[in-house]
Amino acid sequence: MVTTWPPNFPVLGEGCQKFADWVHQMSAGQMSIKVYGAGELIPGLEVFDAVSSGAAEMGNGASYYWAGKSPAAQFFTAVPFGMNAQQMNAWIYCGGGLELWKELYQKFGLISFPAGNTTMQMAGWFNKEINDISDFKGLKMRIPGLGGKVLTKAGGTAVLSSGSEIYTNLERGVIDATEWIGPYHDYVMGFHKIARYYYSPGWHEPGSVLENMFNLKAFNELPEHLKVILETASARMNVWVISEFEAKNNLYLQKLVNEEKIDVRKFKPEILEQLKKYTQEILAELAEADPFTKKVYESFSAFAKDIRNWASYSEKLYHDL
Amino acid sequence: MVTTWPPNFPVLGEGCQKFADWVHQMSAGQMSIKVYGAGELIPGLEVFDAVSSGAAEMGNGASYYWAGKSPAAQFFTAVPFGMNAQQMNAWIYCGGGLELWKELYQKFGLISFPAGNTTMQMAGWFNKEINDISDFKGLKMRIPGLGGKVLTKAGGTAVLSSGSEIYTNLERGVIDATEWIGPYHDYVMGFHKIARYYYSPGWHEPGSVLENMFNLKAFNELPEHLKVILETASARMNVWVISEFEAKNNLYLQKLVNEEKIDVRKFKPEILEQLKKYTQEILAELAEADPFTKKVYESFSAFAKDIRNWASYSEKLYHDL
Repeated sequence: MVTTWPPNFPVLGEGCQKFADWVHQMSAGQMSIKVYGAGELIPGLEVFDAVSSGAAEMGNGASYYWAGKSPAAQFFTAVPFGMNAQQMNAWIYCGGGLELWKELYQKFGLISFPAGNTTMQMAGWFNKEINDISDFKGLKMRIPGLGGKVLTKAGGTAVLSSGSEIYTNLERGVIDATEWIGPYHDYVMGFHKIARYYYSPGWHEPGSVLENMFNLKAFNELPEHLKVILETASARMNVWVISEFEAKNNLYLQKLVNEEKIDVRKFKPEILEQLKKYTQEILAELAEADPFTKKVYESFSAFAKDIRNWASYSEKLYHDL
Repeated sequence: MVTTWPPNFPVLGEGCQKFADWVHQMSAGQMSIKVYGAGELIPGLEVFDAVSSGAAEMGNGASYYWAGKSPAAQFFTAVPFGMNAQQMNAWIYCGGGLELWKELYQKFGLISFPAGNTTMQMAGWFNKEINDISDFKGLKMRIPGLGGKVLTKAGGTAVLSSGSEIYTNLERGVIDATEWIGPYHDYVMGFHKIARYYYSPGWHEPGSVLENMFNLKAFNELPEHLKVILETASARMNVWVISEFEAKNNLYLQKLVNEEKIDVRKFKPEILEQLKKYTQEILAELAEADPFTKKVYESFSAFAKDIRNWASYSEKLYHDL
């Protein structure tokens, strides 16, 4: 199992090892999976090709890393202003998402199952206040993918840097801002020591799905019970990762606020409204890339619209209780 | 596997059968589980005793049905104004909840794992408008458990009736209102044909956890790989049930609104505020029942308070996007 995370990465790497342990235990030792961190066997961003070619039999990552293979891949992780973890699971497991994901991946000799979710992220760390959409003008921010395209529409500059470079770039002023994940991972990175403002909400990644991908030929050659073991252990990993993020983010938010005296802020509704407009333009353009991407976009958007309506009578009201 | 649900009950009964299928497949046929609906082998509310005594090896239900065994049991399903599905999972899997649950159940020769969640419910169906807390005075409502105690504090009468009696009781005016689950199950019950007002949110059950319980002696005698298979299949069932509820509630809410022209309403914040006050009084009394219940109450409450704070920067803001 090759992964896109640094070795022993909190939550995500731990989840991979738990998955390997469960598979070993459930198969009574028939199947052993060795987990490799990014760079240990191959670089993190070569996971897709390695598993597709059969150089590795399985991998763990997030499908939006493979947007270069097909723009549609992004919808199976997260798009800005998309769905949260619970809603993504509903779409993938029970709303047709997994079937579309399988249809896309089989073209590359792959099959993936959901295997975690970062849950709602934070908007990131900034060295200036963001009081108005115009404050994004000229802002150099580390923000990958579609979030980066939205920033660009707002007049900023999206900078790509790998996890290991962000701290130094932010400290030296190469970038003015960065997003990462949420309080737990952000605390471990130490961003609170060098950035002044911590903003919420993570509009660009409201519920990023993580994937366990398998080489399709290797998967299909397995006896039936091992196939079900791999899919079932992935589902357990999914709910464990979500639960661990929720539990840990909560603890580390307290540390940031109470021990590090970080002023956690919220973007004004007008700012989010404008970012959402840019996002809708970008997604509409993306949907025109090819017919399959359009099909995924339409399935995702219709499900998101309906479930948001249900949430307006359920989960949204819960948070006002 | 004896269950508290009618045979083939939507989502919950289907989840039990899926669980049995996965276990059979993963164990390569070593373990076969036969699912019995309530009343097929034993009445639904005798599941706890049947599994505790070893008359059945496993059961599926919800721990709040067993409040008579220990008041603490209620916290492992749901308490009014408690936590939602994602937060309950975080507390149980990663916040100490499962350890407390095991501690309680082992006294009865049982062990349980989470195996689903109804997600945020609806407040129920009413034959009169609820515009003010005083409108609960004299109201005869089918609402079990702690929710019923809250209704009583508000001057209403909590009526117990089994699922099969609710429709007739509501139609004949024996009761003025009833809660059930959410749009999918409520639609199947046909309440929209006989009640005028459908209210949200389900303050009394914001995220009710369902359980797979096992006779502890029978569980402990299993070889290690089957134990892990049972626990892992329960986790997959958990995320499937949540996803299916989210996907189906959404579809059936549309049917109720668009086809049945139901006016779905929201309780005013002042009403919820008052119900919450009554709930806090009831939970404080409950915590004094015995030292173990107090310990569970304190763990639950501390986790709920912290995760609500994190939600105020994450999931709550998501729903405002």
